[in-house]
Amino acid sequence: MSSSTETPLHAVDLIRKKRDGETLTAREIQFLVTGAATGSIPQEQLTAWLMAVWLRGLGLDEVRALTLAMRDSGEKFDPHSLGKVAVDKHSTGGVGDKTSFLVAPLAAACGVAVPMISGRALGHTGGTLDKLESIPGFRTALSLAEFESVLRKCGASIVSQTPKLVPADRVLYALRDRTATVENAGLICASILSKKLAAGLDALVLDVKTGSGAFLRNYKDAEFLAALMVATAEAAGTRTVALLTDMGQPLGYTAGNWIEIAECITLLRGERPSASEDLRELSLILAGWMIHLGGHAPSAEAGYRSAERALAKGSALTAFLKMIEAQGGDLSVFNDLKASHKPAATTVLAAWDSGYIAEMDTTAIGWAVQRTGAGREKAGEPVDPNAGIEFHAKRCAHIEKGQPFATLYGTSRAHLAEAEALLRSAIHFSHELPPATPQLVSRIFTAENAQARLIAVGSGT
Amino acid sequence: MSSSTETPLHAVDLIRKKRDGETLTAREIQFLVTGAATGSIPQEQLTAWLMAVWLRGLGLDEVRALTLAMRDSGEKFDPHSLGKVAVDKHSTGGVGDKTSFLVAPLAAACGVAVPMISGRALGHTGGTLDKLESIPGFRTALSLAEFESVLRKCGASIVSQTPKLVPADRVLYALRDRTATVENAGLICASILSKKLAAGLDALVLDVKTGSGAFLRNYKDAEFLAALMVATAEAAGTRTVALLTDMGQPLGYTAGNWIEIAECITLLRGERPSASEDLRELSLILAGWMIHLGGHAPSAEAGYRSAERALAKGSALTAFLKMIEAQGGDLSVFNDLKASHKPAATTVLAAWDSGYIAEMDTTAIGWAVQRTGAGREKAGEPVDPNAGIEFHAKRCAHIEKGQPFATLYGTSRAHLAEAEALLRSAIHFSHELPPATPQLVSRIFTAENAQARLIAVGSGT
Repeated sequence: MSSSTETPLHAVDLIRKKRDGETLTAREIQFLVTGAATGSIPQEQLTAWLMAVWLRGLGLDEVRALTLAMRDSGEKFDPHSLGKVAVDKHSTGGVGDKTSFLVAPLAAACGVAVPMISGRALGHTGGTLDKLESIPGFRTALSLAEFESVLRKCGASIVSQTPKLVPADRVLYALRDRTATVENAGLICASILSKKLAAGLDALVLDVKTGSGAFLRNYKDAEFLAALMVATAEAAGTRTVALLTDMGQPLGYTAGNWIEIAECITLLRGERPSASEDLRELSLILAGWMIHLGGHAPSAEAGYRSAERALAKGSALTAFLKMIEAQGGDLSVFNDLKASHKPAATTVLAAWDSGYIAEMDTTAIGWAVQRTGAGREKAGEPVDPNAGIEFHAKRCAHIEKGQPFATLYGTSRAHLAEAEALLRSAIHFSHELPPATPQLVSRIFTAENAQARLIAVGSGT
Repeated sequence: MSSSTETPLHAVDLIRKKRDGETLTAREIQFLVTGAATGSIPQEQLTAWLMAVWLRGLGLDEVRALTLAMRDSGEKFDPHSLGKVAVDKHSTGGVGDKTSFLVAPLAAACGVAVPMISGRALGHTGGTLDKLESIPGFRTALSLAEFESVLRKCGASIVSQTPKLVPADRVLYALRDRTATVENAGLICASILSKKLAAGLDALVLDVKTGSGAFLRNYKDAEFLAALMVATAEAAGTRTVALLTDMGQPLGYTAGNWIEIAECITLLRGERPSASEDLRELSLILAGWMIHLGGHAPSAEAGYRSAERALAKGSALTAFLKMIEAQGGDLSVFNDLKASHKPAATTVLAAWDSGYIAEMDTTAIGWAVQRTGAGREKAGEPVDPNAGIEFHAKRCAHIEKGQPFATLYGTSRAHLAEAEALLRSAIHFSHELPPATPQLVSRIFTAENAQARLIAVGSGT
């Protein structure tokens, strides 16, 4: 039967169907997504549908149809003229999560193309784009043609989502944010994957965070989302793995904007500050998977070793600097990382007790970072490139009362006072040795085991 | 604590709260209703909340708070300067339901003030206002001052809802219609009662329809809505009863616009066509309750007898004609009811089988009436005052093949053909005597037994 003879669809009928817990067809989901992207379905109907989805769930086929319809709702990037395998990494986000600035050059240095299209953060800490924009002159708003040219030259490029890329997600995400319909695995999966798949990736590595700073606090929810994303992306033809990784404390020793870039440069130069070890290790693991899925290593472990060599040789640093220069960034700021950091106000927070650092409430730490001026409260607000928090000790470390525990950089004294109060409440000292920090990577989902995880809990998301 | 020191409310938090099945406070519900009425809460947030309400339900306190907040969202009518007790009747609607044109003059003739404010129908058959507007010159859009003046002169007035009366319901109802959130007892209750209570009623009689032509098909749902409305209106200080009445066949022998008015005039003149007996009986019962609750009869039965006398004496006819004249209607059309009926096309449908009329699918009959041109498909469309269907036989009647079963009046031959096909499919003949029609009034809820019915099923609506 040709599509012209099919009965016309009406949004109200599809809302009713989902309200009653029924399964929508791919054609019905496409109708809703096209309506969202073009505005032909009014927002008050979209949000009623989103709430029905939140309360009734989406089946696996519905999540897949939603992801594909959203991917196809606008312009797409085709990396295949580059003559390389295109691989990206996506993280569900956390405090101090700066692995993008390490994995992109590491994988690029090992022969993989990394076309990284990043969304503007609504979250409490600055997003990837804010951090890059702390480099004077750095431009993230490239056209797809400029993006391709940087990729051709440097192997990696990190840009902001163009207005025409996945317009359905832009509309639906803004509506979800205002209608308490964000936290739904099916909707999260489709939102993340539609943007990644619109970049024409051959493979994708997903970093799904767990622990006190993660978007999904419950471990089982994080596992489910990881498995759902792997199954959905694989069904769309993109080789995908998901790693469940610890966000029980900030990653590395910085959280902010410029200070995160500086930490990455330090690592890319081959230095190994002890509070950066978790960041270095996770970046090598993620890059290893990217290199493996990109066909440049027979296994993730072999990919890890390739990435380690690229770090040791300095070829990853070279790739990163080349990308920054190609996107307009001023490389002279890297001559003296300390001198290039010009915070308006600084305060050192001393430990208020002696003992082990037993707990770091990382979501609260994220809010403290935001209050320094490094993050935004509302979309569109500017962020302070120099603001953020540097940690001198992390979980399980022993610290003496009066020793510097963290340095706070703020837009003003008032910003610092607020941030310091939040940070204090987020840290708990203990006189006894606390349990060891959880494994950095606690679980890995691939095409092989993702489906089994989904079946184990039923298909409702 | 004064309201100025209370924390500000945000729509997204209230959506989340209802999404999670929690109970909203009266202050929270008032915030949402005010936001709907003034437009300060965008429609896409209201519909997400409505869907959460549909799927999670409202508790009794929430329904009461919603009703009162909606009642208070705009201008109100105060009938107390009339010096009479103000009583109204509301029906959940059905095919051929024209009791308003009988109970208003019957109750008015017995000393009760009947300030009847009616909404514009979205349903398949013409609404009360459409029927009245089939009288040349009749105006339903009166100001509240004109409304009061007609009431003072005639004891009854039937007008359309002013734009300023219960604006929150206007906004929410239009949104519910487009988001599949209409059929929820709590929302229906608040929508109906807010409009009735804004008319300042002392008492209210509710006619909740059941059977094949009713809005709520399931008897238990209709019972629940009836009990909920009684409990809610009583809690708001209005003496209220609800009657569950049969809508298993059209009420009276006409369904349309002018032909319904003509049927009522016939009854008010003291004639008793056999196919009108159910309409006459139900109108006397409803009017009897209105007269009783209005303090003009010691019981509903005594009220019934008073109404019967007003009918016999012709004082109800006088009251109706006085009201029509006061609202600009041309009384000369009543001189010859048949001659005043000028349908563009007419067809007589003969019985296609001999036997008893076993079943009348009254919702399908309603659609047939709409297709004649008597109803509208979309809000704002005009209706044909002369269109409709006249029934020559009703349920349980025996009819011979070829005898006229119904006469259809349409806007055109094409309208009639469509209506006839629908009507044929709605009627089933049987060679055996079918079970008797259900009781006209199957159950009555008062303040005393409504609460018990609600407790029996729990407070979720």
